[in-house]
Amino acid sequence: MLTNDIINELKNIVTSENVLTNKEELYVYAQDATNTKELNTLPDVVVFVETTEQVQKIARLAYKNNIPLISRGAGTNLIGGCVAVDGGIILNFSKMNKILEINDENLTIRVQSGVVVNDINEEAEKYGLFYPPDPSNLKVSTIGGSIALNSGGAKSFKYGSTRNYVIELKVVLADGRLITVGSKTAKNSTGYNLLQLFVGSEGTLGIIVEALLKLVPKPESSSVMLVYFDTVKESINAVTSVLKNKLCPATLDFMDNKTLKTIEDFCPSGLLTQYAAALLIEVDGFECSLAYQQEKIAKICREQNAKEIKIANTKEDAEKIWTARRSAFGACAKLKPNVESGDIVVPREKISQLIEEIKKICESKNLLYAIVGHIGDGNIHPHILLDYNNNEECEHYKMAKDEIHKKAIELGGTLSGEHGIGLEKSGYMQFAIDDVTLEYMKKVKKLFDEKNILNPKKIFK
Amino acid sequence: MLTNDIINELKNIVTSENVLTNKEELYVYAQDATNTKELNTLPDVVVFVETTEQVQKIARLAYKNNIPLISRGAGTNLIGGCVAVDGGIILNFSKMNKILEINDENLTIRVQSGVVVNDINEEAEKYGLFYPPDPSNLKVSTIGGSIALNSGGAKSFKYGSTRNYVIELKVVLADGRLITVGSKTAKNSTGYNLLQLFVGSEGTLGIIVEALLKLVPKPESSSVMLVYFDTVKESINAVTSVLKNKLCPATLDFMDNKTLKTIEDFCPSGLLTQYAAALLIEVDGFECSLAYQQEKIAKICREQNAKEIKIANTKEDAEKIWTARRSAFGACAKLKPNVESGDIVVPREKISQLIEEIKKICESKNLLYAIVGHIGDGNIHPHILLDYNNNEECEHYKMAKDEIHKKAIELGGTLSGEHGIGLEKSGYMQFAIDDVTLEYMKKVKKLFDEKNILNPKKIFK
Repeated sequence: MLTNDIINELKNIVTSENVLTNKEELYVYAQDATNTKELNTLPDVVVFVETTEQVQKIARLAYKNNIPLISRGAGTNLIGGCVAVDGGIILNFSKMNKILEINDENLTIRVQSGVVVNDINEEAEKYGLFYPPDPSNLKVSTIGGSIALNSGGAKSFKYGSTRNYVIELKVVLADGRLITVGSKTAKNSTGYNLLQLFVGSEGTLGIIVEALLKLVPKPESSSVMLVYFDTVKESINAVTSVLKNKLCPATLDFMDNKTLKTIEDFCPSGLLTQYAAALLIEVDGFECSLAYQQEKIAKICREQNAKEIKIANTKEDAEKIWTARRSAFGACAKLKPNVESGDIVVPREKISQLIEEIKKICESKNLLYAIVGHIGDGNIHPHILLDYNNNEECEHYKMAKDEIHKKAIELGGTLSGEHGIGLEKSGYMQFAIDDVTLEYMKKVKKLFDEKNILNPKKIFK
Repeated sequence: MLTNDIINELKNIVTSENVLTNKEELYVYAQDATNTKELNTLPDVVVFVETTEQVQKIARLAYKNNIPLISRGAGTNLIGGCVAVDGGIILNFSKMNKILEINDENLTIRVQSGVVVNDINEEAEKYGLFYPPDPSNLKVSTIGGSIALNSGGAKSFKYGSTRNYVIELKVVLADGRLITVGSKTAKNSTGYNLLQLFVGSEGTLGIIVEALLKLVPKPESSSVMLVYFDTVKESINAVTSVLKNKLCPATLDFMDNKTLKTIEDFCPSGLLTQYAAALLIEVDGFECSLAYQQEKIAKICREQNAKEIKIANTKEDAEKIWTARRSAFGACAKLKPNVESGDIVVPREKISQLIEEIKKICESKNLLYAIVGHIGDGNIHPHILLDYNNNEECEHYKMAKDEIHKKAIELGGTLSGEHGIGLEKSGYMQFAIDDVTLEYMKKVKKLFDEKNILNPKKIFK
């Protein structure tokens, strides 16, 4: 519990209306999009911040009084990344959401942490520019969270993850000091890359308050196709073959039969539910190349036994397909009260095997599952459906989760492609990272946060 | 001076023939491609390593005895990055040059540190794959050096720097322990990004022994054009306009009149030396899009007063242009005995101003100069020509160097786009990086190398 003095100091910093202390209000923040019901995750206070100076003042206060400080954007993460485990102050960035500058000569956009990802896209588009990372939740998730977790999306295969678009960050350190890491320039080889240490650090090394993001010229055009297969294996062979043929689609996404059916039940989109697997393939680039790319891809897919190929002919058709794909997670929630989304990633040549193993593991434990994945990246999201009130199912899920993560590592993969570690996967770090490297990660944590007050208990058990 | 015992231990580790101790042999290693004549840079011993285990054994020996350990590839760096400042062991990686595996499903290549960059390109091409970073010295420089300096090249505008292609590293720490950072997967959000801390760390945090690099499907085709302008300003306006028109060339390089003339004298390539500036623009992608891209670019350039546009019609023509461009540095060495190459980088909208300032600074000091640059990245290489035996010229150069770097910072830029800091620019770090960030960079150095034996005196003064 925080003293009244501390609460009053917080009110002085951000005004009373930006400080929440009522239990009913705090309960909203005891959760993110993850199951944390076994933990006490009630914060002591939630503070809406609007300026860097406020964040610095609060950090100094927290540092002096050893109070945990947890940054939170939209709370859409799937790893328990922004809940307070043993109380503390939640910094809510949703009001610190200004786009500060777009520069169409330098091809950069400067944003505060709380800006919604999609707003960046929309602003960039006005200038014929493009911010490629597109997490499924981009219409609500914030850039601060995206950077903290190095989120990806369906276009990461061609364009990379959030990491590849952050060139400068302003970060408030645990003691309240402000640093600027990276540079305003497209290239930079000036000293150690602290920038990329903060990207993906899940709020455990510093508090990201502002980011300068790189934009790219927007591709002239894009087109989406859905390709259906009778077997998962054939769909994956098709992806391999596409890559071997000098093609580089923007998106190479996978949906299994259960996903197709579940989406179609939830939001009818004309998906063909009789097939074992579908690939969502988006090509982009110059208008004149789109038909060429699609014909080549179609030919390759047919050689790999594709059964049907549907090309979106209009922008509306394409949008419909994307909406369907992005609703996979939400649709699954219709089948059972709760959905757990995995995020393992393996070298591409192990994808078939990983999917096969996930199937085996889930079936052996009578768990309902549906699989989607950014297959071009080897990044698989198994959605496992369950009811948190069913203890047996929860036990089975835990066992399956253990087995799936260990299998991914065994196949040469790792724990997370784009969701991060948080509370959810901290127990697996020792299996994914060698002892000495893990020792150094913990030393880095200590270097930046010797009091362990920045988002404690995340990433490391 | 090292004791005979140490030398004998080194000989035991790598055999006598791989240990150089004769002064005449050591003098070869007292230099890289940088002027270090004012320093004592004679190493105590040079050791050719061939395996990770040898590197570990040597590191343990050096750690126990507090001996500096300096990694060296081809020694082509321009920053005094791999010379021993106060003696020590130079680890020569030129024999540790095996390509260990290429995987055309995972789109990766595994290489030892001493592999020559161009060999990676050639191996990748056999599989229809592509390793984009292309430093001018790629036919001799090694991947270990490329990673240590985060080197770029002419294709960085579209494809990014070396940093963007390193996904896993094996690194020998100061105490001889081996760690693996990163993962074998295209995406990774698993714990802190120590990988990118080592990329660009110039051998000061650990010794890179092996790398797993990401490859991309090779673009179907590419084509080069040269566009000439009467003023520098017009050429830069043309670049801005190209970027605003949804075009994304692979290369947007700049050569000033002096560079054109100097190259043409040195290796006649048909460059038009009557113009103030030329842009080398390479487009790549699907065959069907090349003419379209070039026509659009040509139109935009004409609108910006381009005077002549030459398109390379054959592969040989294109190769000739690239050879000319890559020989800019070498050609300058014909004009004066010594060439100093800068590597500052500024936000794109400041390029004209930076070039103008460089001109002013050099002219005020009667220094001969020629400017090339990866202008799409805001990365400018002023080549300043001088004679190290002419003390006045050297003094003038030092003053010009100071002024140019400070000007780049003043314009919102930074010290290095792709060459790194080394000895050459360590004195400017305090101007480019804020105090607290610099303090943390030094803390990171101490964390990984508390004895300060890994490439000492580099990056930080």
